[in-house]
Amino acid sequence: MIEPARRINLDRNDPQSIQTQLTRQLKRMIQAGNLSAGERLPSTRELAGDLGISRNTVVAAYEMLMGEGYLESELRSGFRVNQAARAFSARSQTPIAGADAERSQQLPRLPVPFRPTQPDVNLFPLQIWNRHRNRILRKETSLLHYQSRFPVGLDSLRCSVADYLRDSRGVRCQWHEVAITSGSQQALYLLAQLLLKTGSRVLMEDPGYPGARNAWSQAGAVIVPAKVDSDGIQLSRKPHPKISLIYVTPSHQFPMGACMSLARRLALLETAYSSGAWIVEDDYDAEFRYSSPPLPSLQSLDEQRRVIYIGSFSKTLFPGLRIGYVVLPPELVDSFAALKSLVDDFSPLIDQATLATFIDSGAFYSHLRRCRKHYAERQNFFLEQVKRFGLPLHFPVLGRGMNLAGLLPKGTNDAALSMRLQKVGLDVPPLTRYAIQAAPPGLLFGLAAFNNQEIRKGVERMVSVFSKE
Amino acid sequence: MIEPARRINLDRNDPQSIQTQLTRQLKRMIQAGNLSAGERLPSTRELAGDLGISRNTVVAAYEMLMGEGYLESELRSGFRVNQAARAFSARSQTPIAGADAERSQQLPRLPVPFRPTQPDVNLFPLQIWNRHRNRILRKETSLLHYQSRFPVGLDSLRCSVADYLRDSRGVRCQWHEVAITSGSQQALYLLAQLLLKTGSRVLMEDPGYPGARNAWSQAGAVIVPAKVDSDGIQLSRKPHPKISLIYVTPSHQFPMGACMSLARRLALLETAYSSGAWIVEDDYDAEFRYSSPPLPSLQSLDEQRRVIYIGSFSKTLFPGLRIGYVVLPPELVDSFAALKSLVDDFSPLIDQATLATFIDSGAFYSHLRRCRKHYAERQNFFLEQVKRFGLPLHFPVLGRGMNLAGLLPKGTNDAALSMRLQKVGLDVPPLTRYAIQAAPPGLLFGLAAFNNQEIRKGVERMVSVFSKE
Repeated sequence: MIEPARRINLDRNDPQSIQTQLTRQLKRMIQAGNLSAGERLPSTRELAGDLGISRNTVVAAYEMLMGEGYLESELRSGFRVNQAARAFSARSQTPIAGADAERSQQLPRLPVPFRPTQPDVNLFPLQIWNRHRNRILRKETSLLHYQSRFPVGLDSLRCSVADYLRDSRGVRCQWHEVAITSGSQQALYLLAQLLLKTGSRVLMEDPGYPGARNAWSQAGAVIVPAKVDSDGIQLSRKPHPKISLIYVTPSHQFPMGACMSLARRLALLETAYSSGAWIVEDDYDAEFRYSSPPLPSLQSLDEQRRVIYIGSFSKTLFPGLRIGYVVLPPELVDSFAALKSLVDDFSPLIDQATLATFIDSGAFYSHLRRCRKHYAERQNFFLEQVKRFGLPLHFPVLGRGMNLAGLLPKGTNDAALSMRLQKVGLDVPPLTRYAIQAAPPGLLFGLAAFNNQEIRKGVERMVSVFSKE
Repeated sequence: MIEPARRINLDRNDPQSIQTQLTRQLKRMIQAGNLSAGERLPSTRELAGDLGISRNTVVAAYEMLMGEGYLESELRSGFRVNQAARAFSARSQTPIAGADAERSQQLPRLPVPFRPTQPDVNLFPLQIWNRHRNRILRKETSLLHYQSRFPVGLDSLRCSVADYLRDSRGVRCQWHEVAITSGSQQALYLLAQLLLKTGSRVLMEDPGYPGARNAWSQAGAVIVPAKVDSDGIQLSRKPHPKISLIYVTPSHQFPMGACMSLARRLALLETAYSSGAWIVEDDYDAEFRYSSPPLPSLQSLDEQRRVIYIGSFSKTLFPGLRIGYVVLPPELVDSFAALKSLVDDFSPLIDQATLATFIDSGAFYSHLRRCRKHYAERQNFFLEQVKRFGLPLHFPVLGRGMNLAGLLPKGTNDAALSMRLQKVGLDVPPLTRYAIQAAPPGLLFGLAAFNNQEIRKGVERMVSVFSKE
């Protein structure tokens, strides 16, 4: 009888459960020959007592090791190390030594103030979501199966999204023109692969969204920056030569915040029509308007179906869900689906089906209303705090979205300031991070994910940094 | 007071719920002007009575329409059509007309016998899975957040998969060399984009897996087919010129079923070492061995880290989950993660965290044991039935995997036969479907997803088709 208890170290503060730690340590002992083939292990009661843990935990660990072939059990005589276990393990012993030493595991983190574009996931009605999910799982085993006929999403979800976009954003579409993607980033990537080739020219807002820029660049495109002002993207008077694609965020320019004026929208459409370019409209947080009613989407004005409309549930529900969507012009529907199928067959089905009924039931709309109310209050509270301390920030666009762009006095090094803010635990990117050629010095604040207490503390920390400037 | 009840048609056989139907029809009436701005709607009690449905259903429909801005309510005076509703809706009216007429919605379907490579999802312990999921959701709100630091998966899951692969498949890896993908198809796609360019030469088994072939072709590669025999892929004596990548299924050749001999494995590694080619080992159903013990993976023999190992949980758990994995040589770890990040940021987190504890708890191993037992019995039962009816099928490889390749007499048109089987409700692809240049006539049978009754009925239908040959 050996005494494994002496060699086992269990740490209740480790992110791995006690059971997992125990299982892994016993396994390593077998692999290393500290427990040899055929040897009897202490009884579950005995080992549990020695280690000061529950007997069930030991039973579970032994059963797992049995399942993997490390242990075998005999009626009434307890557990033994399997004869075959060591031979098998010896082969894989070398790489295991020090296997997990080189890079240490990380846990997912909560966002710190004022990380932009983060929703408050605590507002998400997880219980209602789970009720929908459970109801669906009780009747639809087909969702567990391979369903290659749905590369761009379940038809039920595409219908629900089409309804939502028609009603709330004026988007003109039939349900089969809606494609579900793995977040809006996948929509950007797939469009880049589909529409661009090496040397294609892409016009985009400067400053603008890096995730989109990366997708265009990866496809070999040349980025042509266009300045933005309080009416959105500025179009040059002479037509842009050979532009393949124009990327814009008309509802709430990322990161500056402007809403594109109607005149600019019409001019942009004309540019696209005359040059044959596609327009990608990224409507990333249009759901959040607090004072004025929302302008309908740019896509709703498009008579020639040159606008490709992109959105996601990362901001309206939660980012970990990874469900985005794109509304495609008819001629792109089939090629987009073929590429999506090649890239990852189809996206997870249970969440899609859950989301469809979550929207159809109205729970989605209730959740949006609730978020809108909270996010509006948080923007206001933040602005009050900033004013109270007299911070040298000017906010040109208020009353919508999850983020606020705050301009700093001319000549400020916003990147250096952002680094100093990071040192006091704040995540506030500088506006110049989003520049292609140029951006005014400033900071981008996300307010949605943080409650008043966090906002107050965050502003106080900012004050401590600003006062040292 | 108008009477919407007369214009509403509710259909209990419609896949949409009664509440959804009611909501949508009321919305259409407002959009079409049949209910005009400011008009009062019947009380919920009244409408419920007229339509013969529950009052709660009407309440829910009205509340949803209120949430979307179509209705407004006044204290004690019921619901009215919102003044703003019609103006907004009129704009989007045109595309709505006939919107869903063009393409009809489809529901996910259950697989029919003998569709290959499908697990029996009814064996999946969904309740245990949900218990793990709920436990995680209670404590880890971080999983709902944006977590761009995990493009290739949560570290906890990468550790669990690394442990599993080391123990069960002899894979040599450190946890950070494991990348989680959206099914194994995404792993194939990303590797193709990373390792191949136009004109690159890819050696692959003929017949072979079309999903892989499509990924290589999409990246512009030239496919070089290599014949397979009962020892797996045949290597030509003279070295293959300028091969960039070799794709193989050594444990259970897809679709023929051979297990690659040790001599061939060593020769294949030598070929890769001398030519500088990468080897992609797709270990798609190695978990299912019924008679002989499994050979460890090809990757376990590789001393120079030229083998990239791919697998997925689509067969061991369920395909709708969309979780695959790839074990990367150290030099590819960072570039793979960068590309994954660009393609879709990161994959859904809740399922990943659930899967990690599902593996660590041992539930995964119990499930595998249970599946192995059932799948073995089903293969045997199928073979008995085929023998009983004397069908002209020869099965060269038995005792492993989810599929059986059945050879037909020389000269049989297997594609035509497969079509006739399809007409009697069977999904049995011809082996020639997987041919690049050539495949023997035959059929590929998946047995895992079907119980004995389904297998018996399936074989009886086959008999009816074969007897007419």
